[in-house]
Amino acid sequence: MYKTLGILGGGQLGRMMITPCIDLGVEVYFLDPNPACSVASFTSHLTVGDFKDYETVLNFGRTVDVITVEIEHVNVEALEQLEKEGKTVNPSSRLLRTIQDKGLQKQFYVDAGIVSPAFKLISGVREITEFPIVQKMRTGGYDGQGVQILKSETDVAKAFDVPSVLEDLVDLECEVGVMVARNKKGEIQVFPPVTMDFDPDLNLVKYVVSPGEITDNLNKKCVQLAKSTAEKFELVGIMAVELFITKEGGVLVNECAPRVHNSGHLTIEGTSISQFEMHIRAVLGLPLPEVKLLNPSVMVNLVGAAGHTGTPRLTNVEDVLAEYGVFMHWYGKTQTRPGRKMAHVTVVRDTVEKAKTVADEVLQKLQVVSD
Amino acid sequence: MYKTLGILGGGQLGRMMITPCIDLGVEVYFLDPNPACSVASFTSHLTVGDFKDYETVLNFGRTVDVITVEIEHVNVEALEQLEKEGKTVNPSSRLLRTIQDKGLQKQFYVDAGIVSPAFKLISGVREITEFPIVQKMRTGGYDGQGVQILKSETDVAKAFDVPSVLEDLVDLECEVGVMVARNKKGEIQVFPPVTMDFDPDLNLVKYVVSPGEITDNLNKKCVQLAKSTAEKFELVGIMAVELFITKEGGVLVNECAPRVHNSGHLTIEGTSISQFEMHIRAVLGLPLPEVKLLNPSVMVNLVGAAGHTGTPRLTNVEDVLAEYGVFMHWYGKTQTRPGRKMAHVTVVRDTVEKAKTVADEVLQKLQVVSD
Repeated sequence: MYKTLGILGGGQLGRMMITPCIDLGVEVYFLDPNPACSVASFTSHLTVGDFKDYETVLNFGRTVDVITVEIEHVNVEALEQLEKEGKTVNPSSRLLRTIQDKGLQKQFYVDAGIVSPAFKLISGVREITEFPIVQKMRTGGYDGQGVQILKSETDVAKAFDVPSVLEDLVDLECEVGVMVARNKKGEIQVFPPVTMDFDPDLNLVKYVVSPGEITDNLNKKCVQLAKSTAEKFELVGIMAVELFITKEGGVLVNECAPRVHNSGHLTIEGTSISQFEMHIRAVLGLPLPEVKLLNPSVMVNLVGAAGHTGTPRLTNVEDVLAEYGVFMHWYGKTQTRPGRKMAHVTVVRDTVEKAKTVADEVLQKLQVVSD
Repeated sequence: MYKTLGILGGGQLGRMMITPCIDLGVEVYFLDPNPACSVASFTSHLTVGDFKDYETVLNFGRTVDVITVEIEHVNVEALEQLEKEGKTVNPSSRLLRTIQDKGLQKQFYVDAGIVSPAFKLISGVREITEFPIVQKMRTGGYDGQGVQILKSETDVAKAFDVPSVLEDLVDLECEVGVMVARNKKGEIQVFPPVTMDFDPDLNLVKYVVSPGEITDNLNKKCVQLAKSTAEKFELVGIMAVELFITKEGGVLVNECAPRVHNSGHLTIEGTSISQFEMHIRAVLGLPLPEVKLLNPSVMVNLVGAAGHTGTPRLTNVEDVLAEYGVFMHWYGKTQTRPGRKMAHVTVVRDTVEKAKTVADEVLQKLQVVSD
């Protein structure tokens, strides 16, 4: 009924895109190197292959009408070739190329007039001379990997000796995430901003809270900045705009991810349309309806417990599932390892405070262990 | 992580059970005679075969831990054998046997003390002597097929000459549907009763409205009757209890379907947990959380337009998808024909009245035609 859709990547983000494809009636095809990836049981259209390989992506892309991604680290040259051949690639190869390299991404913000922490580009460790500083590998980082704070000279020993972005440390009040969707007609919809609490040990998000715990004024600023960022990128699809709020109330763009994102998972239950359906609609050129907040909600990631590697099992799952307003999203990964994202749970309550209390209980009870 | 689940039938009801299987992390297997059935694109575990065939059901059932159905017209003898072999069959073969034969079903209500319209059983046309009367074929009826009102002697010409239930015509105020779920521990959860408007031409539900447009007192009666019916049946799974409300305010059980049901589709958006997740939980022995009404909602079935047979296409779909709070559920059938259920749309609004207005617009705009 619509154009056929190919997704590069069959991890948890691809898995959660299946529901809107079922609902809308979209024929969706996946490319992933792992035959037992998260989407494997829930599609008859899985091609096993490497989305970083030119020929593989080219051949896969030629079989569908529209190509999108669930991960930004894909072969961009193949996507460029597919665009030349007349395929629709959303987000575009140009946008992905900019995002893949954090140096180009930072330069883009400068050129577009988007406020972002001050930075310089370096080619290796010997150029690190000022402290404290944030070092981000220009390419290859993911999920908190490839980013670290260097507090003083002694930390240089652990610095990455690769081309990097060195960024001024921002005196943070909090971090805000905004999901923004845009289609080729230029229609834009912005999801309500969320705030994030990080687990300092794992450098992963612990809580995502919606509505975000910020003032109305800041909320408006965040929405506006996310919107203009999507426009500047000429985004088609969805984008997570990660924002820093400074102690002085300033709003800076930290990073963007042009795809569905962990900070938007709670839109499945918390808003009138999910980030996953919005993305599918945007890339297929369908209309983007207004987004309304339905319920205060808190999302927690369930990561593999320390000391457990192997076939995953959740402790106390029956206990947790008995609770009202607790929504499990299992990622279907066949192997757990310490710190690996295995699932998330969204808790919906009348207030954010109540949702946080239940989310804490969930984190206490649910452990992803191995048998 | 849980037991593996086998579902007899891969139509739209099976298709809508995929989402909770994704979310909970359930490995689900389907049996359907049609290789291009509604679930085909969204499972790697489809066995093509006839769920009415003894050997086929037996062999399929032996490969999974728990067997359930999305249609009640399945081979019950095979399910009995699977139960003997130690497999879990939910709902049980005994319950399915009772439901499959409307004569046995009516007798069950009598034995269980459940109020239902007065009836007699006949073996063929020659026993039809009183009018007006409702004739229901004892077996084989489905989706409004096999049920008709015989107004007078002249209607005998169109009567079914098969074993049937003859039922007194009830002076109806309205029809109410209640979805009720029960697990093997005996935990029961009842969804908010809905009211139904029928399309007189197609004898199919046109609107399903939630919350049902009945008094609080009637609402309580309906919930209580649905609950006791599920208990009497010793249901494990979910059941649609279709109720008649008489002009005098009496509540009678019309029929039951021990599966997810058209009258429960709006639970996806309208309540805190969907009928599909509740069913999956119930049959797997997981806990059943409390159900709360989230939003007033109205569901409309989209059936194939008259004069159109072939590959389906929706008219004005972009127009409808642009609207806030309008949720498409496409069934993925490869062929449309006049009156065939092809999709449903649920409309969520602040009030039932507003939702009905939008639902009317949706029905005006969306036509399922063939190319």
